[in-house]
Amino acid sequence: MKTILTILLFVTFLLPLPVALSQTSAIDGFSADRIAAQRRWEEQFRAVPNPQSAREHLRRLTLHPHIAGTKEDYDTAVYVRDQLRSYGLNAELKEYEVWLNYPNTPSVLELITKRRQKLNVHEAVVPSDPSSSHPKITPLFNGYSPSGDVTAPVVYANYGLPDDYEDLKKAGVDVKGKIVIVRYGNSFRGVKAKVAEDQGAIGCIIYSDPADDGYMQGDVYPKGPWRPVASGQRGSVQYLFDYPGDPLTPGRPAIQGVPRLKPEEATDLTRIPVQPIAYDVAKTILSQLKGPVRPRGFQGGLPFPYHLGGTNDVKVRLKTDMDYKLRTIWNVVARIDGNEEKDRWVILGNHRDAWVFGAVDPNSGSSAMLEVGRGFGQLLKAGWKPRRTIIFCSWDAEEYGLVGSVEWAEELATELKEKAVAYLNLDAAVSGVHFGASSVPSLWKLMRAVTRDVKDPKTGKTVYQQWQDRARETASEEEGSTGGEARIGALGSGSDYTPFLQHLGIASTDMGFGGSYGVYHSAYDSFHWMDQFGDPGFRYHVAAAQVWGTLAMRLADADGLSFDYTDYAGQVREYFSEALRLARIRNLAGSLNDKAMTEALDDFAKEAERVEQNRQDAIRSSDRSKLAKINDALVQAERQFIDPRGLRGRAWYKHQIYAPGFYTGYAAQPLTDFSQALDDRNSAVAKESLERIVEAIKRATKTLKQ
Amino acid sequence: MKTILTILLFVTFLLPLPVALSQTSAIDGFSADRIAAQRRWEEQFRAVPNPQSAREHLRRLTLHPHIAGTKEDYDTAVYVRDQLRSYGLNAELKEYEVWLNYPNTPSVLELITKRRQKLNVHEAVVPSDPSSSHPKITPLFNGYSPSGDVTAPVVYANYGLPDDYEDLKKAGVDVKGKIVIVRYGNSFRGVKAKVAEDQGAIGCIIYSDPADDGYMQGDVYPKGPWRPVASGQRGSVQYLFDYPGDPLTPGRPAIQGVPRLKPEEATDLTRIPVQPIAYDVAKTILSQLKGPVRPRGFQGGLPFPYHLGGTNDVKVRLKTDMDYKLRTIWNVVARIDGNEEKDRWVILGNHRDAWVFGAVDPNSGSSAMLEVGRGFGQLLKAGWKPRRTIIFCSWDAEEYGLVGSVEWAEELATELKEKAVAYLNLDAAVSGVHFGASSVPSLWKLMRAVTRDVKDPKTGKTVYQQWQDRARETASEEEGSTGGEARIGALGSGSDYTPFLQHLGIASTDMGFGGSYGVYHSAYDSFHWMDQFGDPGFRYHVAAAQVWGTLAMRLADADGLSFDYTDYAGQVREYFSEALRLARIRNLAGSLNDKAMTEALDDFAKEAERVEQNRQDAIRSSDRSKLAKINDALVQAERQFIDPRGLRGRAWYKHQIYAPGFYTGYAAQPLTDFSQALDDRNSAVAKESLERIVEAIKRATKTLKQ
Repeated sequence: MKTILTILLFVTFLLPLPVALSQTSAIDGFSADRIAAQRRWEEQFRAVPNPQSAREHLRRLTLHPHIAGTKEDYDTAVYVRDQLRSYGLNAELKEYEVWLNYPNTPSVLELITKRRQKLNVHEAVVPSDPSSSHPKITPLFNGYSPSGDVTAPVVYANYGLPDDYEDLKKAGVDVKGKIVIVRYGNSFRGVKAKVAEDQGAIGCIIYSDPADDGYMQGDVYPKGPWRPVASGQRGSVQYLFDYPGDPLTPGRPAIQGVPRLKPEEATDLTRIPVQPIAYDVAKTILSQLKGPVRPRGFQGGLPFPYHLGGTNDVKVRLKTDMDYKLRTIWNVVARIDGNEEKDRWVILGNHRDAWVFGAVDPNSGSSAMLEVGRGFGQLLKAGWKPRRTIIFCSWDAEEYGLVGSVEWAEELATELKEKAVAYLNLDAAVSGVHFGASSVPSLWKLMRAVTRDVKDPKTGKTVYQQWQDRARETASEEEGSTGGEARIGALGSGSDYTPFLQHLGIASTDMGFGGSYGVYHSAYDSFHWMDQFGDPGFRYHVAAAQVWGTLAMRLADADGLSFDYTDYAGQVREYFSEALRLARIRNLAGSLNDKAMTEALDDFAKEAERVEQNRQDAIRSSDRSKLAKINDALVQAERQFIDPRGLRGRAWYKHQIYAPGFYTGYAAQPLTDFSQALDDRNSAVAKESLERIVEAIKRATKTLKQ
Repeated sequence: MKTILTILLFVTFLLPLPVALSQTSAIDGFSADRIAAQRRWEEQFRAVPNPQSAREHLRRLTLHPHIAGTKEDYDTAVYVRDQLRSYGLNAELKEYEVWLNYPNTPSVLELITKRRQKLNVHEAVVPSDPSSSHPKITPLFNGYSPSGDVTAPVVYANYGLPDDYEDLKKAGVDVKGKIVIVRYGNSFRGVKAKVAEDQGAIGCIIYSDPADDGYMQGDVYPKGPWRPVASGQRGSVQYLFDYPGDPLTPGRPAIQGVPRLKPEEATDLTRIPVQPIAYDVAKTILSQLKGPVRPRGFQGGLPFPYHLGGTNDVKVRLKTDMDYKLRTIWNVVARIDGNEEKDRWVILGNHRDAWVFGAVDPNSGSSAMLEVGRGFGQLLKAGWKPRRTIIFCSWDAEEYGLVGSVEWAEELATELKEKAVAYLNLDAAVSGVHFGASSVPSLWKLMRAVTRDVKDPKTGKTVYQQWQDRARETASEEEGSTGGEARIGALGSGSDYTPFLQHLGIASTDMGFGGSYGVYHSAYDSFHWMDQFGDPGFRYHVAAAQVWGTLAMRLADADGLSFDYTDYAGQVREYFSEALRLARIRNLAGSLNDKAMTEALDDFAKEAERVEQNRQDAIRSSDRSKLAKINDALVQAERQFIDPRGLRGRAWYKHQIYAPGFYTGYAAQPLTDFSQALDDRNSAVAKESLERIVEAIKRATKTLKQ
């Protein structure tokens, strides 16, 4: 494949007419006689999205705060549905009844030293950003925090990771019965709540340290894109690493007739009150703490030496008052039926609900989705007949825990397992100009191919080329300029691909253009912020729509699907060899059957190569029945990584290669159970987990064989 | 050697009577019949130093600020001389006339925006530290800064490294004709001045960022050991990477009759005014800067996003007014003549002059030296007759650029080349409890052996064991617990071993007990600081004296000197393989004769092994004439690394393996010219430099052969 890559690069770099030429160059998965037509449809599609239209979508979607389940959220659902309908697509609302909380009254936070000081739980108005004074902006709160009223000494626990509590113990600071204050970063906030609860803390305050996304990163809003002093990060503290979606209906759709757990039975909910605060408020608390000076790695960007606290003379009162209820949420689902393979689905998903205005997260993606919908609508009018069915999903309540997508995936599980070709996610599509992507390894080649056909607005290079150039720039020389391509990340969690990939085994992708984005989950993630910093000109919204739509068109129209399991085998081999290295350092390698794993991977790789050869042959000979079989095998091979027994202690997650780490929450921990067992120094579990992975790989190999 | 090591560890760990046992265990370099006596002398020596006495020395030495060449400096010289004499040693003052500056009037620093603001160049009084109000504390100034009066826009240039100026260029900020403000750290301050001057800056302000040694490291003085807001770092800005010592007499002693350069001819002096400031003053300047937001890596610990400045509306006036003169400095030199080999010298050196009180730097070492002197005095009275001559040197004007030691080494160069066995340095001996050492690789084994015979005061383990345990703790698991020993560092510059090792080729060591030391070169490096934070109880002063004295006794008394060139060969091989790896990444390896180097190293290693075998045999057979030849070969092998042509563009430095990096100033850059040529992407120079290194290794091999 190296040679092909080189040629493509050559074409892109040196010839003066890349567009004209690309029309005649090959597209993987398409037979020679179909390439020109496919190129034309794709070019025609990419000509549709435009900055004015993308900007107007974003403006409309971000007029009001639209937390899941509110009237304003419903209005955005109707807007998306009606826009898609106006493009000629068949769009409907899909409702679920799910367990959600809003703050009933603003939380009460008091610092109690010699005196009592009431602390602020609101974000400040920024005069130059008109929406920052919107009356419906909520005070700072965490989704799925319980109500509570606790008073106790405060302990600073850094990022709130298990290792941080180890350091606290070493320093002689106990958190039992205390309130911890932790900073955002390095783990999902639900993990911070879970670990705090497990350690015996009775309350948890989470703040945004200026070292992480505030002034130490650059100018703060409204002068720059970073978090200002009076801004905090909202967000869910659901234990989504246990299970995501509606807390009361794990594994089943939140529809009428499905029995619901009592809230106290839900295992993905924390029992201690959790509260986010801004860093000016954190400063007031942290600067008062006594106790030992913080260990290495605990210091943040506030201008004093952090202390660990825990002394009785510095307490905090935290009172949270939550309004919990079953509430209606609204997904929007639109479909374009496939012309030849109606029962093969290519799904594009993006959530729509936001903690406040959500200009970046998620409505830059929603705007891109509407532009893709508009483009596909025009193609259909011009006679385009996609071979497979394309489904657009505008999810609700993602912010609470991927609720809209999980409920839908649970409701349609059987059908999805049979029919879904791939799930293509877009969440925060644009916060800057730097392209990044995550996906299962079988879709790496396709992802790269598509980015070669889209222009990077700023540089005029292809998105692919700019992505690679930047990766080379940021890799230091000493790390070795190995000449490899920019890494495509592993899918963990934190967006709506999770139910598709990790619960059902559907090949998934995620992507976006990133930048200096310090206003995450704050009132300043607004249209004004986007217009000033994220994407002035809205050209990256257009590029996001172009990449996403092209990706969907390739998958919807290909003769032989562009799935490459050689990359998958190589990636798993890499994960395994790294895990084995750790196992050896930790003296856990003895009982492991690494030979079985190596053999399974060898077989898998061999079979992947064979099926690829067959696919190319079948495309060349236009052998339709053979292609149908190969396509099904490629789609179903991913499904084989699902083990119905699920992961240890969290059976909702069933994928043997990819899941969020239990202690990362967002970030993927590949070979999940095996790798966690190594971290836990549990060689028996490591052995068993590895056996399950070997079985999964063997199942995938068998599927490819058929 | 692995087995021997294991046995020793076993002995240290498990047997209940390590002291009793160690008296019968072997000492490398001593014949069987002499071990017991040597053990007895060493034990007797180590029983002498005590905390009360060490504390009293430090108190006396730090009563007044004693900058080189002042009356108070002279008083400390007399105190050291008289103390040594009182122990029965033959001690004398040794004077040189050297070029030194003091501030004539305090520097003037003004921030000029819409208004003019005068900024402080003094350190604040700390009420709980009585000496901080001493009237003779100088205002903040840099040794060897010229006088000047410049007004220009300010540019923030991070650490002032060449790469930082590259980043400034990328950001479109030009420093030509401007004043740069840079932070301490990552390079010697003279390098900061040199690079600023080379880049066209007309003035240079250096401040201590709280991220580096202030509040972000921990509690600040007087609450903790770190630098408080109103403290700055004094220090020399001599280009000591060009040549150290008296600027007017490079390569020659600053004594009567030696012709002197005009100051404007000295190539080791900067031409732009340089001024250190405290971080509260830096905050006033930096918070006003406009221009682009700083690139990655430029942000420090002040609570705002740093900007690069360079705009015309934010200027600084810097006026320095220096009193330059030829001034008298006073080394103290004391000697104990060797009983059998009077013309073989073991030299212990420590400087005595300080920027202010210098409790850590350097007088913790001076106190230790007096305790070693007291111990040796008592041994002599008890009949100890060291085989070789021992020389104590209390250097002056080290702070300006190793002036006292360099002038002495230059004066005695011929004799030293013939007679010096080793130079054992101690500068800041104690700022905490963590032992660390640097030395030529041939002395690693000896250094480790000695630390096995001294107790760590806090833990009761041996210094060796505590050193290793801590190294293991601080190495992260993923780096691999390879089971290796704690690293002994490479000698760069910044203390008085430089003339001995790098100008003359005398095997050298340096060491100390380090800790949280934020008051470096400030008025708070005081007796009170030491008593509170550095070494309350003064037991580490005692341990430093014990290690240092034992090291000297081993070298002074050994039958066959404990030099190991196998370690040297291994270390150089490691340096070379790392350099070659870089050369390959940078496509510079083509023209290099790496085969010649590998062969030279193979021969060297083989010869090292052979000489070690011979040494062991000769010790066993007590073959005195053979031992004399072997000892001379071991001592002279180091001398062969000296190339009389010197390093490129700085001929004073002549050692082919070890020198300070041109752009580090303090830190060693092993294989110096070769490694610099690789950094400069100059393959012709790399080739030639490597050839010189190969020649040096061959010379050393030949010397060992004899």
